[in-house]
Amino acid sequence: MAGTAPTGDALAGYLRAQATEFLRALRLHRETGSGPNGTAEAVDAARALRRSVRRISGSLHTFRPLLETDWSESLRPELAWLSGTLSMEHAYTARLDRLLLALHRLSGAAVFPAQSAGGGPAARSDLTTAERGNLTVGAAKAGALLERQLTLARTRAHSTALQALGSSRFHAVADKVAVLASEVPLTATAAGADLNPLATAARERLTDAVTGLPLVTAGHPYNAEALIHGLSPDPAPHPQDAPWHQVRLLLRLHRYSREVLLGDNALVDVRLLDAGQALNRHRDASEAAAAAASAARTPRIAPATAYALGVLHADQRHEVEGARFVFQQAWQKQAVGTT
Amino acid sequence: MAGTAPTGDALAGYLRAQATEFLRALRLHRETGSGPNGTAEAVDAARALRRSVRRISGSLHTFRPLLETDWSESLRPELAWLSGTLSMEHAYTARLDRLLLALHRLSGAAVFPAQSAGGGPAARSDLTTAERGNLTVGAAKAGALLERQLTLARTRAHSTALQALGSSRFHAVADKVAVLASEVPLTATAAGADLNPLATAARERLTDAVTGLPLVTAGHPYNAEALIHGLSPDPAPHPQDAPWHQVRLLLRLHRYSREVLLGDNALVDVRLLDAGQALNRHRDASEAAAAAASAARTPRIAPATAYALGVLHADQRHEVEGARFVFQQAWQKQAVGTT
Repeated sequence: MAGTAPTGDALAGYLRAQATEFLRALRLHRETGSGPNGTAEAVDAARALRRSVRRISGSLHTFRPLLETDWSESLRPELAWLSGTLSMEHAYTARLDRLLLALHRLSGAAVFPAQSAGGGPAARSDLTTAERGNLTVGAAKAGALLERQLTLARTRAHSTALQALGSSRFHAVADKVAVLASEVPLTATAAGADLNPLATAARERLTDAVTGLPLVTAGHPYNAEALIHGLSPDPAPHPQDAPWHQVRLLLRLHRYSREVLLGDNALVDVRLLDAGQALNRHRDASEAAAAAASAARTPRIAPATAYALGVLHADQRHEVEGARFVFQQAWQKQAVGTT
Repeated sequence: MAGTAPTGDALAGYLRAQATEFLRALRLHRETGSGPNGTAEAVDAARALRRSVRRISGSLHTFRPLLETDWSESLRPELAWLSGTLSMEHAYTARLDRLLLALHRLSGAAVFPAQSAGGGPAARSDLTTAERGNLTVGAAKAGALLERQLTLARTRAHSTALQALGSSRFHAVADKVAVLASEVPLTATAAGADLNPLATAARERLTDAVTGLPLVTAGHPYNAEALIHGLSPDPAPHPQDAPWHQVRLLLRLHRYSREVLLGDNALVDVRLLDAGQALNRHRDASEAAAAAASAARTPRIAPATAYALGVLHADQRHEVEGARFVFQQAWQKQAVGTT
């Protein structure tokens, strides 16, 4: 393979493989049941489904000029809708886990090893109600409030996802992906076209966006930036997170374009993975902090509950700051010049 | 001076100088008035008084075997009482400043440059009530509550200090220090005795105590250690701070013993200063966090107030963690082998 630039054929192969993976995951998802808190297999199937949707969607975006325009322009918003709809239930589950784990940690309960270098929990929560016995009244009430609110949100997201999977809109998407599994609508000249320029452009969009991040500040530990506006009267107080979220998406597109180019030869770039995981954690902590702040606005809560939610909010904002630090460290090591 | 080991004479000279400084500061303190929120001169005089008391007290401790036992054993607890009494008013003032500055920072108000590498405010607050206008209701109420509680505590501390300075107990201490300014009660053999072994012992007590600190954890930014127990039901939830406070005291003793040995030749050891300042910040943030937690236990506060106090508490605990990181960095650079 060395010396031969990857062409549109490689893109077609990648899209076919992802479409096949989508169909496999969809079949698995239907077989493994669809109740909330489904089996591990159902959770895996849903994850595989989201994973293939993201990759198809991302490749359509990065390699747009090589694909039949009408087809790809009609499919992309549908994939975005599907991806968003399918991800909500998982997001609420993960958010609740993260917040309950944090409440436990803040209560001095040894749920996971305290000396986690990167900061913050990584494992999934499997706390039982009994295990929450050693929380303070405030922490316990905050936990119960978050559980109520996020479980409700998750249940709604589950219903919405089920509805979506049964809709004619979804069936239209699934049909298109089924076609994609055998036949990729490349443009007339795409099959032999070099993929490198488009992949390079994707990488440059990423590096440009990273250039705009406040990495010098992020590289100074305990810079206290992430909690600025933590008590702001602004209802959307964290516009500072947006550029990081944007980089997260661009990093993902870059990663997928590497998969397209390198195929099964793609060595996993650990540093790219580290950077991406830091940005995932940044996003998760940012949204968990917002959920704690939002729960604190629930009318008629006890002061002790509000206090615990304040501590929790600040804790998650510091996770945001810690994630930026980890990203900065990973990015420094990053050999950006290689695809 | 090179090659000549400092002897008890150097200790006597140091103690005489500090006693003279004490008397000068005391005179200044009496002249500059003693009302609360006194003039800058009164504040300076009080600081100079505390400063000399700490140095006399510390030297009596480190060089105990060279001093007449009955005399030093009777003076030391009296100096400790005086030091404690004199420091309270300043401590409450500084704590309130720190907390109000933090509330401002958390509200997104640009009171001081945001990119402080070491994290956290260093400057003293001079916020007017008008400047607090852009705080949220919760932050404003939290600020008002803290101001009420800490101003009351400060006023009490001021009265206590005034009472102390007018007491016969204080006059007895002042008389002893006045004698010390001209005549230091060394033991019979002390004048020619080498100070190095006792200074070395002080340094070793410091290095031993530092060895006991969790410096590996502290060197990992965002290790989330300081906020463990942040919501603990334990009313004294931060025993983890105690060894750091202890090192702070031992570092001070080591610094004073260097002053005794090196006299005016003592080059300021910047790294020692940095390490000491980090531990001061550690102590200040630890106590500020406790004050926020304590204010949150005030009956009948609004949930928004409690929430702001929770955020503030967590913010200060992260300052604690940040101070540990800075200490770890400073200590690593430390040439511990030199006195």
